[in-house]
Amino acid sequence: MKNTFGSSVSLTLFGESHGRAVGAVLDGMAPGIAVDETFLCHQMALRRSLSAISTARNEADEVIIESGVYRGKTTGTPICLRIENQQARRRDYEKNANLARPGHADFTAREKYHGYEDPNGGGHFSGRITAGLVAAGAIAIAALRQKGILIGTHIAACGGVCDRPFEDLSADIKLLNEMPFAVLDAAASVDMQTTIAAARAEGDSVGGILESAVIGLPSGVGEPWFDTVESQLSHILFSIPAVKGVEFGDGFALAAMRGSQANDPFCIQDGHVATATNRAGGILGGITTGMPLRLRVAVKPTPSIYREQQTVDLATGKEKPLAIVGRHDPAIVHRARVVVDSAIALALCDMLALRYGTDWLAGKE
Amino acid sequence: MKNTFGSSVSLTLFGESHGRAVGAVLDGMAPGIAVDETFLCHQMALRRSLSAISTARNEADEVIIESGVYRGKTTGTPICLRIENQQARRRDYEKNANLARPGHADFTAREKYHGYEDPNGGGHFSGRITAGLVAAGAIAIAALRQKGILIGTHIAACGGVCDRPFEDLSADIKLLNEMPFAVLDAAASVDMQTTIAAARAEGDSVGGILESAVIGLPSGVGEPWFDTVESQLSHILFSIPAVKGVEFGDGFALAAMRGSQANDPFCIQDGHVATATNRAGGILGGITTGMPLRLRVAVKPTPSIYREQQTVDLATGKEKPLAIVGRHDPAIVHRARVVVDSAIALALCDMLALRYGTDWLAGKE
Amino acid sequence: MKNTFGSSVSLTLFGESHGRAVGAVLDGMAPGIAVDETFLCHQMALRRSLSAISTARNEADEVIIESGVYRGKTTGTPICLRIENQQARRRDYEKNANLARPGHADFTAREKYHGYEDPNGGGHFSGRITAGLVAAGAIAIAALRQKGILIGTHIAACGGVCDRPFEDLSADIKLLNEMPFAVLDAAASVDMQTTIAAARAEGDSVGGILESAVIGLPSGVGEPWFDTVESQLSHILFSIPAVKGVEFGDGFALAAMRGSQANDPFCIQDGHVATATNRAGGILGGITTGMPLRLRVAVKPTPSIYREQQTVDLATGKEKPLAIVGRHDPAIVHRARVVVDSAIALALCDMLALRYGTDWLAGKE
Amino acid sequence: MKNTFGSSVSLTLFGESHGRAVGAVLDGMAPGIAVDETFLCHQMALRRSLSAISTARNEADEVIIESGVYRGKTTGTPICLRIENQQARRRDYEKNANLARPGHADFTAREKYHGYEDPNGGGHFSGRITAGLVAAGAIAIAALRQKGILIGTHIAACGGVCDRPFEDLSADIKLLNEMPFAVLDAAASVDMQTTIAAARAEGDSVGGILESAVIGLPSGVGEPWFDTVESQLSHILFSIPAVKGVEFGDGFALAAMRGSQANDPFCIQDGHVATATNRAGGILGGITTGMPLRLRVAVKPTPSIYREQQTVDLATGKEKPLAIVGRHDPAIVHRARVVVDSAIALALCDMLALRYGTDWLAGKE
Repeated sequence: MKNTFGSSVSLTLFGESHGRAVGAVLDGMAPGIAVDETFLCHQMALRRSLSAISTARNEADEVIIESGVYRGKTTGTPICLRIENQQARRRDYEKNANLARPGHADFTAREKYHGYEDPNGGGHFSGRITAGLVAAGAIAIAALRQKGILIGTHIAACGGVCDRPFEDLSADIKLLNEMPFAVLDAAASVDMQTTIAAARAEGDSVGGILESAVIGLPSGVGEPWFDTVESQLSHILFSIPAVKGVEFGDGFALAAMRGSQANDPFCIQDGHVATATNRAGGILGGITTGMPLRLRVAVKPTPSIYREQQTVDLATGKEKPLAIVGRHDPAIVHRARVVVDSAIALALCDMLALRYGTDWLAGKE
Repeated sequence: MKNTFGSSVSLTLFGESHGRAVGAVLDGMAPGIAVDETFLCHQMALRRSLSAISTARNEADEVIIESGVYRGKTTGTPICLRIENQQARRRDYEKNANLARPGHADFTAREKYHGYEDPNGGGHFSGRITAGLVAAGAIAIAALRQKGILIGTHIAACGGVCDRPFEDLSADIKLLNEMPFAVLDAAASVDMQTTIAAARAEGDSVGGILESAVIGLPSGVGEPWFDTVESQLSHILFSIPAVKGVEFGDGFALAAMRGSQANDPFCIQDGHVATATNRAGGILGGITTGMPLRLRVAVKPTPSIYREQQTVDLATGKEKPLAIVGRHDPAIVHRARVVVDSAIALALCDMLALRYGTDWLAGKE
Repeated sequence: MKNTFGSSVSLTLFGESHGRAVGAVLDGMAPGIAVDETFLCHQMALRRSLSAISTARNEADEVIIESGVYRGKTTGTPICLRIENQQARRRDYEKNANLARPGHADFTAREKYHGYEDPNGGGHFSGRITAGLVAAGAIAIAALRQKGILIGTHIAACGGVCDRPFEDLSADIKLLNEMPFAVLDAAASVDMQTTIAAARAEGDSVGGILESAVIGLPSGVGEPWFDTVESQLSHILFSIPAVKGVEFGDGFALAAMRGSQANDPFCIQDGHVATATNRAGGILGGITTGMPLRLRVAVKPTPSIYREQQTVDLATGKEKPLAIVGRHDPAIVHRARVVVDSAIALALCDMLALRYGTDWLAGKE
Repeated sequence: MKNTFGSSVSLTLFGESHGRAVGAVLDGMAPGIAVDETFLCHQMALRRSLSAISTARNEADEVIIESGVYRGKTTGTPICLRIENQQARRRDYEKNANLARPGHADFTAREKYHGYEDPNGGGHFSGRITAGLVAAGAIAIAALRQKGILIGTHIAACGGVCDRPFEDLSADIKLLNEMPFAVLDAAASVDMQTTIAAARAEGDSVGGILESAVIGLPSGVGEPWFDTVESQLSHILFSIPAVKGVEFGDGFALAAMRGSQANDPFCIQDGHVATATNRAGGILGGITTGMPLRLRVAVKPTPSIYREQQTVDLATGKEKPLAIVGRHDPAIVHRARVVVDSAIALALCDMLALRYGTDWLAGKE
């Protein structure tokens, strides 16, 4: 289905980095959900760069709601969200249009689209396309929140520095959602930003690991085959540019455990079935347990670096060195955070609508 | 879409562990592909237990081709593959039917299906459902092979023992596809099996990491949003019971690198654009580069262990200890290997058919 | 998605006319719905021929439930329904294997599957494939019935003879569901059967029009774009072999009316909003009004006729006369009736599950 | 999938009649197809009203291409097409916001969206939403045309007046595509327009039948189950507001024929297999024969009429008379013509891309 994700609640993305606009069509969202433009701006701001550590391109990213919202509430029909590209500068990129940037999609785009693709700033492969996803995600996040479902993501690791683990999930999530640089431990936050600045100074970049938690999810959501909660979340998460790994619960660490360590014992908490530990990350057999959903996402370093790299001229087929110019981030992991939150929210809205019907997420009076 | 995966080539699974049969409907496969029953048996055998280290249940798993194959070749219409459950023993499980086994889907199945689910041996959540996937995968693997696309998977790690990395991919893949216990390094293979036996002796189990490689894939396959190669592969891989992590190329390790390390320089090899390294695992911007596809899958330890565990009686809501009886594997990672191969093959057939049309995989005379 | 229809409740069909078996996988049906094997047999019998007017092939069509039903109730997981082909006679057809039968799919199958298709009795294009659809439909019909949603179809016209229109829908539907030859007016029924017998005597065949009604549907189901109730029903109805037209409410007759005639005035009936007439067939803007759903389906005459016809030998590319032998129906419209009921039921189950969630159809205690 | 249609080539619609904008995202179109803005304007003009016989609302309908076209050609990535609503007049409609207009979706929208829907001018149910479909269809039509596939539609009947049947398809199609009022017979065209004017004078409206033909389609496209060519075309056609019937080839008339009349004899024409007649409308077994595709669509009369009608006040639940004011068409069948062409083109592009791959439609140099 290409640029559309989801079946009951679905998202379609469009746009190129330096075209007229980027945006999204969010369809199937329940009617009556309040659309708070302040929150929308807040989320868009989280996706933008931090002046201290990021790229020079810094757009206002005003979201124009073209349809689907009436008198401040979702109508239930498609919500088109459009963000104009005000700082589009196609010329910056033209000089090197045939030099495939390592780590970027320039070469694969050429193989797929035969040179008809818009190469400026990565075109449709640009991280800028996530602006539409974040705008739509803001509505999904708000819809979930009014049902008591909260999502939070922190930078668990960046450039060799680790954040503290989640502790009080409710408090941590609240905290994270206000932070432009989402790190729970203040000292780690400073260290990470120092590391990013150091990489920038060397014309280089860094990656990182994002860790997310979702609380308030009902049990019994998801499918055994093939639409497990892990399958649906990984499907959307692996669409986010630069994501190269996804794990749930203790993930890869589970592979090294014994069953007696890895299994979460069942117990009764507050009159409900719960698990004493949560190594499974809130999912068993592809279906939610009602425990917090936990996942981690590996984000590779920004491929745009100023250091000279070896590449190939796609027009001539000759090897050639490349020095990238233009505006680039030495790290995108902090900006990817809100993209991950948004992607999780959209996939969950879809799963919940399938499970409980199209009105389940509907606004409460 | 629940128990159906894929859009041009699609797979539908059915069955319960101790019902009449398990099976699959494979639809959209190109016409004229030779279906070699010897190879089908070979693949089914790889999924079965090894007597030395595995469960006592060991069925012949004869695959009955109900439709879609005529005169030894695929017709292009749905292929129904059915495997009868000859050793179904529903009684073994009944005694503990209300005690949710930790690490299993008993509790989440109850939350989703309200007690109407077949609880025997995990019902539709059982690893036995993978028999249908492997049968369908055998046809997909054969279809890809005649187009020069080869898949191989080894146990990269199990119980603390690591295999050697892939070296000569073509030779390694050939070797692995004949091995019942897919480990490239002979000493590591012995050590892993010893470790599994030790876990078994202690009434415990182990997990592991599977590493796969695919060679011969054309470049330009996949989509930027949302059907990236990673998205589609992770979607099917995370459906396999016990899979809790998926990474592509250097995956989580990329998160700790600098961009200058992580980027694969482009170069010319044999007159074609290639990359000097392959940290991206053959995928950039969600689209194949033509380099080998590389991925790793984390498999949690078998949740069925003989050690006493803490759980809850779902009928009474009381905490209760549980001692699992019956037939269980101390490890499934070696059996999951062929399931992973099959899942990869099915997803690739779908992507290739979408890219190049429904006849692309068609049999060569 | 080819041989799979539906998104929340979905059906996958497999099989060939003279292969081992035909069947269906019904997925996503709510748990706890009683599966009454007597009703299943009843529905299968309605699909079979009437000895007086039909083909000599008359199989018992025993439905084997391979999965998804436990202790007489749906589990919520895929229900595989398999019907063995006991009277498969591949030899009957071989002689003329290269002579494309007019009105059949022999030629188009060859164009699509390049000769790898199973040509015996139409292979996967045979009306026999509807056996799986009817088996699955029986479960869907039962699920709807316990929610008060009832479906009935009569032969509105056949061979120039017309049935009386629907009158008391509730009574008419009840009556029809017991009739092997579904005609409300007894005299018309006799006339139609006489007409069919006459066509048979002349080595010819007849078609007909099926008219369906559904009562008890809630209002507010369906989508404005693109999954209107009409879109989803026509999608599945036009899959039934021989269906060449579908209309809703007054359908084509509306095209000749004035708006003042065609519009159904709204009124209040029993405290609810209703329409005084129902020319729209219970659907406005693609969404159910709560009034009875009404549709008509055009079924072309059975293409298999004994009269000599002009055709082409696909092997030699030469024109050649064809005299069809074997077992054939002079009419299928009476057998298509239960196929139409089943198709409607399956599509409605899917729409209702999407609208109200996967448990909405669940069995009542 | 709601407001998205298609799987390899897909269309997503958004917008409300009196919101900011309406539009479409066309995804999966092959790269390199020339986008001719003159042709786009031409198609948009065909959708607009004719001053002599139509509504007073007559927007310029300028299509803004937000993405997916670069240097005049499709890139292969999503094409967002946006049309601003310049004459939005929400106030006209507010007075009667709670009076459900007969024949409109006001009541069903309320049942589905609980009053959160935008009621102005029908909101997302308005025929204005077809502007996005026509814009996208213009690109699809151009893509097909360069592959030699041509579509034409005429008003076969309107207000009791019938057009002549298709004769020389190639010439007729060429003619129709230039006509604002698509009637082949000049006298019939005048009569139909007279009839429309008469209905208008009486505060009433008329419907009609559209008949379409497609030439140049390859054989072997479509699926036996469930994605027959008829299924996919009817799915999109029944989404068009006011469409209540769809038939292929001789459609409902086939139901009254004998098999010997209805079957199209095969023959050899110009060295290819063809049929001597084409009652099947170019489709057998759900798959194209290579003969012209023929279909007919029933369009009900415009539901907005000036005559007083009986309805219900949805706020009070009381019956009430309604006199509709505002701008309305006494007929939409002539405007629906280009919508039907566009819908057919979009569905065919999807089927062809699935059959032959995503590059098949790609632009020729």
